[in-house]
Amino acid sequence: MSEVAQTLEGWFALHDFRTIDWSAWRHAEESERRQAADELQSFLTEWSDVESSKAGSTAVYSIVGQKADFVFMHLRETLEELNAIETAFNKTLFAEFTVPAHSYVSVVELSNYMAQPGADPMDNPEVVARLKPILPKANHICFYPMNKRRSGNDNWYMLGMDERRAMMRSHGMIGRQYAGKVKQIITGSVGFDDWEWGVTLFADDPIQFKKLVYEMRFDEVSARFGDFGDFYIGNLLSSEKFAAMLSL
Amino acid sequence: MSEVAQTLEGWFALHDFRTIDWSAWRHAEESERRQAADELQSFLTEWSDVESSKAGSTAVYSIVGQKADFVFMHLRETLEELNAIETAFNKTLFAEFTVPAHSYVSVVELSNYMAQPGADPMDNPEVVARLKPILPKANHICFYPMNKRRSGNDNWYMLGMDERRAMMRSHGMIGRQYAGKVKQIITGSVGFDDWEWGVTLFADDPIQFKKLVYEMRFDEVSARFGDFGDFYIGNLLSSEKFAAMLSL
Amino acid sequence: MSEVAQTLEGWFALHDFRTIDWSAWRHAEESERRQAADELQSFLTEWSDVESSKAGSTAVYSIVGQKADFVFMHLRETLEELNAIETAFNKTLFAEFTVPAHSYVSVVELSNYMAQPGADPMDNPEVVARLKPILPKANHICFYPMNKRRSGNDNWYMLGMDERRAMMRSHGMIGRQYAGKVKQIITGSVGFDDWEWGVTLFADDPIQFKKLVYEMRFDEVSARFGDFGDFYIGNLLSSEKFAAMLSL
Amino acid sequence: MSEVAQTLEGWFALHDFRTIDWSAWRHAEESERRQAADELQSFLTEWSDVESSKAGSTAVYSIVGQKADFVFMHLRETLEELNAIETAFNKTLFAEFTVPAHSYVSVVELSNYMAQPGADPMDNPEVVARLKPILPKANHICFYPMNKRRSGNDNWYMLGMDERRAMMRSHGMIGRQYAGKVKQIITGSVGFDDWEWGVTLFADDPIQFKKLVYEMRFDEVSARFGDFGDFYIGNLLSSEKFAAMLSL
Amino acid sequence: MSEVAQTLEGWFALHDFRTIDWSAWRHAEESERRQAADELQSFLTEWSDVESSKAGSTAVYSIVGQKADFVFMHLRETLEELNAIETAFNKTLFAEFTVPAHSYVSVVELSNYMAQPGADPMDNPEVVARLKPILPKANHICFYPMNKRRSGNDNWYMLGMDERRAMMRSHGMIGRQYAGKVKQIITGSVGFDDWEWGVTLFADDPIQFKKLVYEMRFDEVSARFGDFGDFYIGNLLSSEKFAAMLSL
Repeated sequence: MSEVAQTLEGWFALHDFRTIDWSAWRHAEESERRQAADELQSFLTEWSDVESSKAGSTAVYSIVGQKADFVFMHLRETLEELNAIETAFNKTLFAEFTVPAHSYVSVVELSNYMAQPGADPMDNPEVVARLKPILPKANHICFYPMNKRRSGNDNWYMLGMDERRAMMRSHGMIGRQYAGKVKQIITGSVGFDDWEWGVTLFADDPIQFKKLVYEMRFDEVSARFGDFGDFYIGNLLSSEKFAAMLSL
Repeated sequence: MSEVAQTLEGWFALHDFRTIDWSAWRHAEESERRQAADELQSFLTEWSDVESSKAGSTAVYSIVGQKADFVFMHLRETLEELNAIETAFNKTLFAEFTVPAHSYVSVVELSNYMAQPGADPMDNPEVVARLKPILPKANHICFYPMNKRRSGNDNWYMLGMDERRAMMRSHGMIGRQYAGKVKQIITGSVGFDDWEWGVTLFADDPIQFKKLVYEMRFDEVSARFGDFGDFYIGNLLSSEKFAAMLSL
Repeated sequence: MSEVAQTLEGWFALHDFRTIDWSAWRHAEESERRQAADELQSFLTEWSDVESSKAGSTAVYSIVGQKADFVFMHLRETLEELNAIETAFNKTLFAEFTVPAHSYVSVVELSNYMAQPGADPMDNPEVVARLKPILPKANHICFYPMNKRRSGNDNWYMLGMDERRAMMRSHGMIGRQYAGKVKQIITGSVGFDDWEWGVTLFADDPIQFKKLVYEMRFDEVSARFGDFGDFYIGNLLSSEKFAAMLSL
Repeated sequence: MSEVAQTLEGWFALHDFRTIDWSAWRHAEESERRQAADELQSFLTEWSDVESSKAGSTAVYSIVGQKADFVFMHLRETLEELNAIETAFNKTLFAEFTVPAHSYVSVVELSNYMAQPGADPMDNPEVVARLKPILPKANHICFYPMNKRRSGNDNWYMLGMDERRAMMRSHGMIGRQYAGKVKQIITGSVGFDDWEWGVTLFADDPIQFKKLVYEMRFDEVSARFGDFGDFYIGNLLSSEKFAAMLSL
Repeated sequence: MSEVAQTLEGWFALHDFRTIDWSAWRHAEESERRQAADELQSFLTEWSDVESSKAGSTAVYSIVGQKADFVFMHLRETLEELNAIETAFNKTLFAEFTVPAHSYVSVVELSNYMAQPGADPMDNPEVVARLKPILPKANHICFYPMNKRRSGNDNWYMLGMDERRAMMRSHGMIGRQYAGKVKQIITGSVGFDDWEWGVTLFADDPIQFKKLVYEMRFDEVSARFGDFGDFYIGNLLSSEKFAAMLSL
């Protein structure tokens, strides 16, 4: 058995993609629409308060294309809190005008390939901050899940630790070139959802998503060992923009 | 032909994942919701009585994310009993507020790779207890199905018995390191459902699911020979929590 | 080109899996339910009469899990008869309370790998009986479709006739060990449906399905060359049991 | 780059598979059903007239199993005509009682692997007749799409022209053995739909579909290089049979 | 790590495929249909004005077969504009009569494999025109997404830059033979949607799509390294033709 890469886990994550049932929305009474929009704004305020109190973080983006109309990305201390958010949302009138489109369950993860031997990473405030991050309010979001491939000669989990560490270091160096342009949150989903990791990127310029993901694809760790799921791309939805999106 | 690994079978298993139709629930009359909730509580009581009488066991968990809202995991002596539970449930008013999301049919299985020659395993009360287990009431559940791969040089079923036994021993040793943290129920589904096995894990700390599954992925038996289906993760739903989840 | 394995064909087969729309069933008038149940019983009687007259055979089983609620497996002389059964069923009130879940079109097939040179197999009454079989009324049914793999070095159709014949002989010997426990009907679907064969098993003890399919998986013809589709498992539905299943 | 196989193209083809909404049909007023059935008969007559005038051809078959209830296979000079047929159909009352089940867009194609150098194939009336064929009124239809595989060592498009030509010649000789029993229409769909070719077979004896497709599977061009999609099998629907199918 | 191919990006693209709900359309009041058709015509006019002002471009085509009834292909400066178009459309009465069928998010891309060292391509007005193209009004459209394969020995991203450049040059020469017959727009979707590129072709003669795509398939870059998604084929929908398509 190959040496196992150690990981650190932080907040649990729920990406909750939803589509608006526009026909139902148009046919609703004005008073219903007002109530539903108020419920949404109450959630946005509540989630913002959670963020202010450092008990979690929530990002809200519209999604371009037919895959969904918007996504809530929630980070919280426990799976129970994430489940409670879902249930509370489902009980609202606003939820009746939405249709579930996709979801992803994971946990913020730091890989320990680069760890200093002997040091306890949780003593490092920077590490702790990365495990419980306040999500950026960048103009754009990009989400996709991925696996490390286990296929014939391209089997990541059969490689030795040194080989994996060397490839991850090269991979990380690409990411670092995008510092200031793209903020990356890696969440682990082994045991939680259908892929091994979720990657959530934030940037003001969406072309930087393309540049980053494309550049990484030429890196051996992605070229030989990366399998990628569906990609979602979106635009920041402030509470004002969300209200405008809903107004008829 | 390779020597066949012998297996022991216990109770049949039905994982029954369902989603709540929240719009219908909200629009139902208060009296209908009360009747439906009562029906659910009657089932929960009935299934608890079956468990007390050692004629089966049932676990009830909410599911995080959009894949489902909750799962009933039933263990019973026969497929007829599992079918009867389904049919009885489907005839209730409560069932009308739910939508089937996924199911899995299997049977509790012990692999005999480690069996002592000459001993009849059914003489061993510990073996019998593992074949007809009372499901834990841990805080969290994790379910996924899996196959042993038959692909080019990575063909489990073409390996010799000794090679398979050695890999399964190593695999089992990882599991044993999680004793006290993760309880694992293996169910066989060859001939019953679309994958060869179902794996159901129970733990109070869900991070232990991730640690266990990830560590096993570096073990040759998973790295080269494991193919995994969709993962479901959930939180314990006591009858009180289920009632609270449904209350508007 | 490899020598082609000759086959003999008998009755055409339609596996017709359906799910009950329980909400509609519950909301129907008592008189509608009675009419629908009567229509079903008329079909069951009619199909039983066809079987008595040796013009075909029909098996009726409930299905465990959410894939379907029941299956009709019809054997008839012609595709036109199978189509007529479908159309007649679809025109009933009972059909309105069901939803198509899955179907499979094939023809009872005997492979000629073991044929005696010079003998005309249709002179053999046992062969004819196997091509036009009366379906057993065993407690349980198991259905799955399969292909022979054509993948890199594991390409069944590139093997020589002798190699294929030797593997099929070994395969058949496993099946013979289950004589009296499992009855197997092989139907060919090349040109008719999405897989090359359908396998329908009947047994009083469903664990025998698991034992048989698992044991065969270690046989080279399955280990290297078998690709399997979805599995359906069910319980015998006599007309009384079907009526009970529908009664509210 | 390998030498490209030249192709000749004739009429465009639309396979339009549809399912009947039997509940809606049963609940319709008698007068609505009469209007809808008349609309259908008008289309059948119109399409028959087009065929008489050699401006196209249309085949109408019922489909066995749940994949669809019937298929219209239209051949016309242009994609615009095929689109116009779809739109005209969609505007009818009859279309309201049907649900789209599957479609396929392609063009009648003759491969030039066997072409005589120097000869213009369009001077050959037999070639022209095969590019603009009147579809047979055989008892049965079989449709499936296929690709030539590009996988590791089994990459059709990396083979030399001579190797491909030799395999296609062997392949064609199998087909010729079925002359008089199976009529085959090959349509190309590169650039038009999800597979590279559609194969439509017509025969009075459906067992001949199975014999032909199975025999070809042992031929290297299929064994190593053929990937096949879903198969549809059906029975001839004359206008009288279609009317009978719809009568309650 | 292999040298990364540089790319230039222009306008963002949204392919928005939609199906008409013909039953709802037929049952709508004449006045509703008139309002809905007017809304559509307003959009067509607005998008045409955007094109005239060089702030974007929109193509409108009907789709042959059941995959969709029509597609809007929008090119705009920003993802926000594309999202705004979607939202505005979704709020109309016309949108109520349509169902989302498929969408694709990408950005017009020029690959720099052929770039002159030292030259800034954005100084070249031809390059700029290709990055912000006015979409042709050809009779037909063809759309499909594609990936460069990363599979065993056929791993595009593990090849050296010189090898990739040589293959892309050969590939480009095929495309150039179709100059005047097929206009090709390549859009990159790495980080934006599920495939790496979208290919949109325009031609007056649809057989040219087939010729081009088939010829390219024999080219090593496609034969060994191209994976292709679903294909959509359509006919130009002028505003008059769109009105005719909708008139009952």
